[in-house]
Amino acid sequence: MEEKVLMLEGLKVLDFSKHVAGPAIGGMLAEHGASVIHIEKPGTGDDSRYYSPACEGYGSYYIWLNRGKKSVTMDLKDPEMQRVVRELIAETDIIVESFRPGVMKRLGLDYESVRAIKPDIIYASVSAFGQTGPYADRPGYDVIAQAASGLMNATGDPDGPPSKLGMNMGDTVSALNGFGSICLALYHRAMTGRGQHVDISLARSLMWHNMMVVKTLAGTPRMRSGNHDAMLCPYGIFEGNGGRHIVIGCADNGVWHRLCSVMKRGELAEDPRFATNLLRVEHREETIGIVEDWLRSMPSMEEAERALLDAAVPCSRVYGDEDILSDPHILGQDWFGEIPLPEGAAHEHHPVGAHGITTFSGGRLRNDPAPDLGADNREILGGHGISEAVLEEMERLNRRD
Amino acid sequence: MEEKVLMLEGLKVLDFSKHVAGPAIGGMLAEHGASVIHIEKPGTGDDSRYYSPACEGYGSYYIWLNRGKKSVTMDLKDPEMQRVVRELIAETDIIVESFRPGVMKRLGLDYESVRAIKPDIIYASVSAFGQTGPYADRPGYDVIAQAASGLMNATGDPDGPPSKLGMNMGDTVSALNGFGSICLALYHRAMTGRGQHVDISLARSLMWHNMMVVKTLAGTPRMRSGNHDAMLCPYGIFEGNGGRHIVIGCADNGVWHRLCSVMKRGELAEDPRFATNLLRVEHREETIGIVEDWLRSMPSMEEAERALLDAAVPCSRVYGDEDILSDPHILGQDWFGEIPLPEGAAHEHHPVGAHGITTFSGGRLRNDPAPDLGADNREILGGHGISEAVLEEMERLNRRD
Repeated sequence: MEEKVLMLEGLKVLDFSKHVAGPAIGGMLAEHGASVIHIEKPGTGDDSRYYSPACEGYGSYYIWLNRGKKSVTMDLKDPEMQRVVRELIAETDIIVESFRPGVMKRLGLDYESVRAIKPDIIYASVSAFGQTGPYADRPGYDVIAQAASGLMNATGDPDGPPSKLGMNMGDTVSALNGFGSICLALYHRAMTGRGQHVDISLARSLMWHNMMVVKTLAGTPRMRSGNHDAMLCPYGIFEGNGGRHIVIGCADNGVWHRLCSVMKRGELAEDPRFATNLLRVEHREETIGIVEDWLRSMPSMEEAERALLDAAVPCSRVYGDEDILSDPHILGQDWFGEIPLPEGAAHEHHPVGAHGITTFSGGRLRNDPAPDLGADNREILGGHGISEAVLEEMERLNRRD
Repeated sequence: MEEKVLMLEGLKVLDFSKHVAGPAIGGMLAEHGASVIHIEKPGTGDDSRYYSPACEGYGSYYIWLNRGKKSVTMDLKDPEMQRVVRELIAETDIIVESFRPGVMKRLGLDYESVRAIKPDIIYASVSAFGQTGPYADRPGYDVIAQAASGLMNATGDPDGPPSKLGMNMGDTVSALNGFGSICLALYHRAMTGRGQHVDISLARSLMWHNMMVVKTLAGTPRMRSGNHDAMLCPYGIFEGNGGRHIVIGCADNGVWHRLCSVMKRGELAEDPRFATNLLRVEHREETIGIVEDWLRSMPSMEEAERALLDAAVPCSRVYGDEDILSDPHILGQDWFGEIPLPEGAAHEHHPVGAHGITTFSGGRLRNDPAPDLGADNREILGGHGISEAVLEEMERLNRRD
């Protein structure tokens, strides 16, 4: 058994971002061991500190997104702070920023300016539509990316409106992409010594999953297909008793035959109406009806799921948050767990958040608390010659009342 | 201007995966320059070759997922082929496989066996629920991951059923995660010389975006909130004339005031019913009604969007595939474009697919065609001593009729 290590230990990151997508990148870098300084606005800090829900007055989003970071407050327009930032940049490996394109340039902190100080820096910019092109200046949130990417249009009932996702994946998929892109840039730097600018767009990060825009040119404009797949059947969300649902995925005849056995409807496996996937798609309503009749005949959704799993028919109940937080596989594999609160907290309620997304045989994760606003001012700003008077004034401003 | 290079050029990959998630990882490695050999089943190859839609008989999914790879057909149980695989592994940097956990072990090709041949190999396994734990053996597809992750439960109308996403993000988000995780492992190998096993789960890759399961423990069980955000207003999908929709995201009072101006309803900015986000959430129906009345009063959705953008109110029409394929920003920034067909094709219709997901100032992408089944047998198997007779027999088997 090899020792698991913090794979990014020793790397230094300056995180100028706020809200969700940018900070989530810094959070992933920090959990893999990088030393991440989150630069925040004096007095209030990152807006996500005030998002609902909150735990002991700490915004839960902030707690998770900024786990394991340091917090330093700075007015980036202040000449003294500009000096400190430049000194910090000289010893930094990675910058993450999520200002509207152009803002970092006005602060003299765009990629070209920064690489003059640290030539091999990896500089990741996160924005709605990327750093170039006609929409570069557009403001954007998760929902804007969901709309522009085609994802909303593809989701929902064919006869209804497009649908918004229930999670802010415009932000989080962009963060996942940003983290991976920075890792690629780190590998490239390790091999060649070269840094670079990494341009992450929320809209593009979601649109990539629409890789199959190919469908349009193939002559088959894509239609929304609601809760059942357009091209496979039975394959989708099925309703049982008490408004409970289960997903069943039957991608080939082998699974269909096993499903027929589970439903004790062996004769259907021979029925010409359902002999192939194409025929089942043609008799979609009937096929779905057969599965839902069987579900309603079962004493509970748990027993239906058990019977399907025993026959190796791909299926899953539709998990809500409570299901996730009580599931033996999810808890046993440590996918979710406690995220510690900052030092000053009463520790009565620990929020629960994701513990990483991948299991590495050689890598482990840190699980350290998010910082109070400006918690590391004295160490970092003080260490770079900021006077006691300024530190005290900032402490007063940042106090949490 | 620095030269852009293929950042993964020189790396060798064996891709034992099929369907979508695993092959998409190999596709990303290939577009960044790695030499990827896709090992396929003799005679039929990867199932995704037969997915609908198709272009000139080439499955569009296969074309995109396997762009830039080589194809070699092998019966992995055949002793001669086992010898060749082991010879290939000795010079391989990365393995990607997506069999049910246990299958690679039965083939003598699990991580422990493979690292005995190539100690620093990076070995990525893609499965529904990961390599360990009570659900490790469960079969799974995209929709199973959508159900188990909480994503379906979070999406849709509060009074309706949970909702399936219109894109197979259980597959593609896992691929994005797999690619980034491999890049992290590559960086770690570059720094320490160590390879490792990377365990990617479809369910976990989606569940991570549910990072905020924290909400439950914070005492606020999450409810589905349909097409409008639960905690911000106006923030969601709004309907105008002709069943057309637009997304508007108003996260603070500044944007609300600008929105009131655009709607020529300046008096609302002073109206106590709408004075704060919390009050607008309380008067949600009324607030949404005001925005939709204004949209219906506009001559077209394009003009509404233009007016909002001019006032820096975050918004976007709900893009369908046709919108994406005719958008000047998307086309101008090269986010989508032609994917070449294999050499034998008539080249009449080139499918369109995503060109990468991130812009790197130092990295470029290859855009090479996917291979015909077994296209590289002669070079690779022949080069490892497989006889002419076997090659010819396989060529006959693999022929595309």
